[in-house]
Amino acid sequence: MDVLISEVGPRDGLQNIERIMATADKKAWIDAAAAAGIAEIEVGSFVPAKLLPQLADTAELVAHAAAIPGLTVAVLVPNLKGAKAAVAAGAHKVTLPLSCSETHSLANLRRTHAQVLEEARGIAALIASLPPARRPHFEGSLSTVFGCTMEGAIPDAQVARLAEALMAAGCDEVGLADTTGYADPRGVRAMVKLVRGAVGHEALTGIHLHNTRGLGLANVLAALEAGLTTFDSSLGGMGGCPFAPGASGNIVTEDLVYMLEAMGLDTGIDLDRLFAVRSRVAAALGDEALYGFTPEAGLPRGFTPARAHRHKEAVA
Amino acid sequence: MDVLISEVGPRDGLQNIERIMATADKKAWIDAAAAAGIAEIEVGSFVPAKLLPQLADTAELVAHAAAIPGLTVAVLVPNLKGAKAAVAAGAHKVTLPLSCSETHSLANLRRTHAQVLEEARGIAALIASLPPARRPHFEGSLSTVFGCTMEGAIPDAQVARLAEALMAAGCDEVGLADTTGYADPRGVRAMVKLVRGAVGHEALTGIHLHNTRGLGLANVLAALEAGLTTFDSSLGGMGGCPFAPGASGNIVTEDLVYMLEAMGLDTGIDLDRLFAVRSRVAAALGDEALYGFTPEAGLPRGFTPARAHRHKEAVA
Repeated sequence: MDVLISEVGPRDGLQNIERIMATADKKAWIDAAAAAGIAEIEVGSFVPAKLLPQLADTAELVAHAAAIPGLTVAVLVPNLKGAKAAVAAGAHKVTLPLSCSETHSLANLRRTHAQVLEEARGIAALIASLPPARRPHFEGSLSTVFGCTMEGAIPDAQVARLAEALMAAGCDEVGLADTTGYADPRGVRAMVKLVRGAVGHEALTGIHLHNTRGLGLANVLAALEAGLTTFDSSLGGMGGCPFAPGASGNIVTEDLVYMLEAMGLDTGIDLDRLFAVRSRVAAALGDEALYGFTPEAGLPRGFTPARAHRHKEAVA
Repeated sequence: MDVLISEVGPRDGLQNIERIMATADKKAWIDAAAAAGIAEIEVGSFVPAKLLPQLADTAELVAHAAAIPGLTVAVLVPNLKGAKAAVAAGAHKVTLPLSCSETHSLANLRRTHAQVLEEARGIAALIASLPPARRPHFEGSLSTVFGCTMEGAIPDAQVARLAEALMAAGCDEVGLADTTGYADPRGVRAMVKLVRGAVGHEALTGIHLHNTRGLGLANVLAALEAGLTTFDSSLGGMGGCPFAPGASGNIVTEDLVYMLEAMGLDTGIDLDRLFAVRSRVAAALGDEALYGFTPEAGLPRGFTPARAHRHKEAVA
């Protein structure tokens, strides 16, 4: 596998629609996605059920997904309390968002930067107290890193300082999140360079991009060229950020996988089975709009996925 | 200006919808697009009005557009007869498509490769017979160059041979056209290298990309990095290829211009005025669907177009 796709639809997609998907439908989605070759799924978020009733069954989903061989089960946690629940449920990876815009941080998490970093230190201490085999991977996600709808651009020095602070607090890695859909290919390249300069190459491998202005896959290409290897995406492009008005739309897993495979990069994902997952989820969702072009257009005549292509070359 | 956007909506967009836009509405579109800073517009196609009644007023549009200072007026011509009409109307640029798939060439133009190349030689001779000031620029467009829905992939040697043949027939340059939406960023890079290797760098500067599978802007980025500087696009992504089933959707001018400007590349186009052109055309079209994300999302807070950004830097 050359590129890791982290499917965030069950968390980021479902938290942004009013309808509450039945737990059985969520489990069927997770099972089908894993069977299609998706190696990491963010199955939910440990936030109070009063705030996001759509994700109230996250603990049950983590336990269910953790039984699927080879699947990395990721969850979002807003604080130490959420991380405790994630650990209890058996999550393999926990992601704590830190909004580079403090205005957005207060609106979204109701916490200052210092308060979020305090939670990060608490989570790191919790993880360190566990037996090694039970320790989840801990990512600090730099959200609104490409700009905020309230603050505009975030100064480079502030981004670098927050990335360093997350690593100093005990994160295993940081991630970049284009919460507002402000990223462009030049900006992505510059941001990877800036943050890797602050925390080192190994501490930044992943990015969460939106398709708010249609640039999602172009930004993926820029991030790939800059050396990143993990990409969040959402089935049908579901989701976005409810606290950033006008900023919605994750990049579409189906189109992303098609692009990478067409470029000869192995994702481990079977496109036909992925399209079947889309049909299944679309049926469970009813009239929710799904984005994406490849499922409707179909694969090009004579299309060969990366792995089969390499096999053919090796045999020839 | 760093990048030239060639707006193909009045030709490629309108030929793919049933409704016939009134000539006055087309003129208003062309005027508004030029006023927004679009420097090249493909205003129509000299095909028999029986085949494409939507474009029957092309001669009148060429004459109208040619009076706009600084605007390059381009047209598509399927043959020598069309080129004669283009010259009579005063077009600045004529584009003759040559489909790399001979199967598609027969279906689309009802001509073999040899017959299209014969038309190219006739057009070159016609142009050479004109006084220098009246000679239009002559582009041979390699369509289905990234693959055909009927033939699949086109062999490299065939693409190189056809590119060379177009230049030998007297074209000023060749262009690449992803008629079927099969291109991916790796394929774009390889194709630019292949065709420039065959005909030289100066003879390939432009590309016509579709967004059939959502990869349009990622392919633009790859083409930019490979050195191309001219991009066809269509307002609202209108258009595509009616003879390649399932292959529709040009790249969206609005999103393309936003991406380039955000990257610091000057297009000469004012985005707010471009969005106003979209609203005007949408009103004239009624219920035709328009694509594109940026017009709805709006520009990022604090967004600065490339030219203003440079000006600011120069002053600082």
